[in-house]
Amino acid sequence: MTDTAALARTFLASLEARDWAAWEDLMTPDVVYELPQSRERIRGRAAYRTFNETYPGEWQLSPKVVIGDAQRAVVWFAWRLNDEAGDAQVFFDFNAAGKISTVTDFWPEPYEPPARPEGLVERW
Amino acid sequence: MTDTAALARTFLASLEARDWAAWEDLMTPDVVYELPQSRERIRGRAAYRTFNETYPGEWQLSPKVVIGDAQRAVVWFAWRLNDEAGDAQVFFDFNAAGKISTVTDFWPEPYEPPARPEGLVERW
Repeated sequence: MTDTAALARTFLASLEARDWAAWEDLMTPDVVYELPQSRERIRGRAAYRTFNETYPGEWQLSPKVVIGDAQRAVVWFAWRLNDEAGDAQVFFDFNAAGKISTVTDFWPEPYEPPARPEGLVERW
Repeated sequence: MTDTAALARTFLASLEARDWAAWEDLMTPDVVYELPQSRERIRGRAAYRTFNETYPGEWQLSPKVVIGDAQRAVVWFAWRLNDEAGDAQVFFDFNAAGKISTVTDFWPEPYEPPARPEGLVERW
């Protein structure tokens, strides 16, 4: 059975290391990368590599939570880009050969909370 | 071994059904609920129930992707609230007895994409 969690960790580590050969080897040639928040889609490993290689700024990624089952995995990771930082999530689908066939990113942004019932919520 | 994915599905289904007894039974009494984007934290099942019971609007939740391992799970779900809709993610930690001890939500918002290298990205 594919160790999807380990492969998901390798995905993030090879991306962080800009080890493009190792990173590409995890995916099918026709991998699909989607960003639902901006409704963007990139088809194919080559285009996806170009997207990352040319991404502006000195970005850094480090995993916080990794969960995998037989066919899927998720990494909740911390990111840094210049003076900004936050948490994001990337979901993976794996094919029967253990290669990543889809990648989906979510980049949640900070927000100020709305009014909440008195006394329920603390802030950090 | 705890079937964390099944329990995560039950969490979402009981919340959707407003079956508060079934929903509470999945968690430890001192469960911690966190919203990292707004840096909000709620301590305890009773306060967390009040938070949800009093949440304004006719919200609906349906699971899209559920992934679980021995100790953690995630649900990527679709939500509707009045005329709005989107995707969100909820992460769970389970204790040795199979009860949820922490819940963490992310609510990513739509955004317009920045300039991208020509020809790489399609929109949907």
